[in-house]
Amino acid sequence: MGRTTPRISHETGLVQVVYVLLTQFGRAVLGNGYSGFGEGSPERKAATNLQHFFNYVAVRVVLAQLESYNREAYYELKEFVSRTSLNDAEIFCKKLIRESPRLKGLAMRILEVRSAYVKRDFEWDNLKKLSFKMVDDSNTKLMRDYVLEVSHIEDENHNIK
Amino acid sequence: MGRTTPRISHETGLVQVVYVLLTQFGRAVLGNGYSGFGEGSPERKAATNLQHFFNYVAVRVVLAQLESYNREAYYELKEFVSRTSLNDAEIFCKKLIRESPRLKGLAMRILEVRSAYVKRDFEWDNLKKLSFKMVDDSNTKLMRDYVLEVSHIEDENHNIK
Repeated sequence: MGRTTPRISHETGLVQVVYVLLTQFGRAVLGNGYSGFGEGSPERKAATNLQHFFNYVAVRVVLAQLESYNREAYYELKEFVSRTSLNDAEIFCKKLIRESPRLKGLAMRILEVRSAYVKRDFEWDNLKKLSFKMVDDSNTKLMRDYVLEVSHIEDENHNIK
Repeated sequence: MGRTTPRISHETGLVQVVYVLLTQFGRAVLGNGYSGFGEGSPERKAATNLQHFFNYVAVRVVLAQLESYNREAYYELKEFVSRTSLNDAEIFCKKLIRESPRLKGLAMRILEVRSAYVKRDFEWDNLKKLSFKMVDDSNTKLMRDYVLEVSHIEDENHNIK
């Protein structure tokens, strides 16, 4: 198996012009709610998705901390998490606040932690850098896998002949 | 209904110290793969989630553009999208490349668009700003709703007495 990355031809200038047209058009269309961005801009939609993730992180942080200094609260929160979906941060917190006096206290701490985490601990620049790298890596991998697969089939056909 | 936001008491200094301890601890724990971050850091996990979203946007952009100038390709891609989940960008693109010669061409365009979109069109600063705002708005709303609900119950109990 060769490790050579196949050369991917980019008619860069043309691609850029086409891209600008595409995305300007796309943004105009997306902005008009054509495509399921009912909650507003793509940035707003992405931020909404991230909120659920930050809430999940905050729950994990609080759980990890409780585990070592308050086992009783740890088990109570863990039991609640085991039967409550973390997919929707709002619903999760809404339920948690109303579950018991102790869980209400822990919910308050989760709200504190997630706010502080978003603002101070989460590495936004790293997110951006990783996203740039990931999209390129993924594009290269998808094309390379396809090229290798097709070459393999062509080789086989050639051998049959 | 009063619109007054309930005062949320923050013993700021203490909260900050506790928070730093919590997140330092949390990050150490998270980094050791305790909490389901099998794919690495929280930033990597968030970036992975965003990749699926960027792919979704790219598909929408290409569809929107095809709709006006190539109806045949538009319907072919739309039909493919209707029966293929967009939840996993990699699987979606892998299938699309192998579906038909025309869809292979469109897949290449989607790869171009998503890369360019991530790097040039997506407003990263806006994402960050919106995330800061959203977490605060959500925290305030969760607490206000709870306070109003509890006040209402207390009022009722008061009236019964």
